[in-house]
Amino acid sequence: MKILDISWSLSNATVEYKDKKTIEFEQIKKFDRDEIRETRIRLCSHSGTHVDAPAHFLKEGETIDKVPLESYIGECIVLDMTKAGECITAEQLEAQTIREGDIVLLKTTNSALKSTGNFNKGFVYLDVSGAHYLVEQKIRAVGIDYLGIERGQKGHLTHWELFTNNITIIEGLRLKTVEPGAYFLCCLPLSVIGLEAAPARAILIQSDEEK
Amino acid sequence: MKILDISWSLSNATVEYKDKKTIEFEQIKKFDRDEIRETRIRLCSHSGTHVDAPAHFLKEGETIDKVPLESYIGECIVLDMTKAGECITAEQLEAQTIREGDIVLLKTTNSALKSTGNFNKGFVYLDVSGAHYLVEQKIRAVGIDYLGIERGQKGHLTHWELFTNNITIIEGLRLKTVEPGAYFLCCLPLSVIGLEAAPARAILIQSDEEK
Repeated sequence: MKILDISWSLSNATVEYKDKKTIEFEQIKKFDRDEIRETRIRLCSHSGTHVDAPAHFLKEGETIDKVPLESYIGECIVLDMTKAGECITAEQLEAQTIREGDIVLLKTTNSALKSTGNFNKGFVYLDVSGAHYLVEQKIRAVGIDYLGIERGQKGHLTHWELFTNNITIIEGLRLKTVEPGAYFLCCLPLSVIGLEAAPARAILIQSDEEK
Repeated sequence: MKILDISWSLSNATVEYKDKKTIEFEQIKKFDRDEIRETRIRLCSHSGTHVDAPAHFLKEGETIDKVPLESYIGECIVLDMTKAGECITAEQLEAQTIREGDIVLLKTTNSALKSTGNFNKGFVYLDVSGAHYLVEQKIRAVGIDYLGIERGQKGHLTHWELFTNNITIIEGLRLKTVEPGAYFLCCLPLSVIGLEAAPARAILIQSDEEK
């Protein structure tokens, strides 16, 4: 069994969406003084790798604690979308092999962008036509390798298309070193009650047969 | 495949260690005003289900980002320690079947204690003799179903015994509905850099053959 960590690391230097400054770690117990270490953590529900629930954009949408864990644990396919250009369209996805029930992770040139420093507002996004195509393929969830899955679409059409069709969204993955192909995804958001999203850790598990 | 969530839920009402008030969720974007929801999260590295790294108690101990993920992902055994009394000793553990390399989860009467409200300072803990016995069995990690793995032992002997022998500690599990036995554990702490611990989500996976 091989474990690939595809999570965005969190520190005071981590890139944040539109350069909002929400992440802050503060050591409240220090070894030299207290003989123990303890840290206060401040972050946003959308910091680093995270899962969006429908309540993020839908008035009556479910919060993250109502979304079944099976939505982001299971058979997964990493698609090579590194030649997508500015956005991923339905036409580009038609060339890929996607099975019903798959969790689809989109590997783009975003994975080459740094995890620390400033936000890159020109990230590759999933166009609404691409989202619609994924809905038609009856996938379970979709993940992308930057802090948002869309930009510049009035009305947040990609989020809307996915959420109204019960497809959850994983944002902030890091796929630079991951070969496209089939894996078992285990993406676990913190068990927060009543929130529209939650920070998560995500790994790919490759069984010995698949390696 | 069946997934059992063994995580401690986080909200403003969650029990915290010694009733420290560190968890706070604040909605910074509200649907009625902003047509979107977003939440600021404040918590402690030891809130709810979390993983302790050696840096928690050892001056030169590794931080959580240096502990291999394999320490808390893998074959796991849930032991029935509900008759343990005040603490779990070596003698009690000798009656159990533990294999080298196992991740050992201790199910005690702690799992019947509430996840919200006030801290219960009389929780069942792992006595240093029990920790030493687990070290001898060459286990990989140990988890317990309350917010600490020990209490009332001068010098934090249980933590010391485990950390100096490279065994990581999972605290804040919830095992009330879990039958003792063998599972596959996936415990994923947030990918925080340089901290002595991290909040985590933990699940048990039961394959169809094991059910």
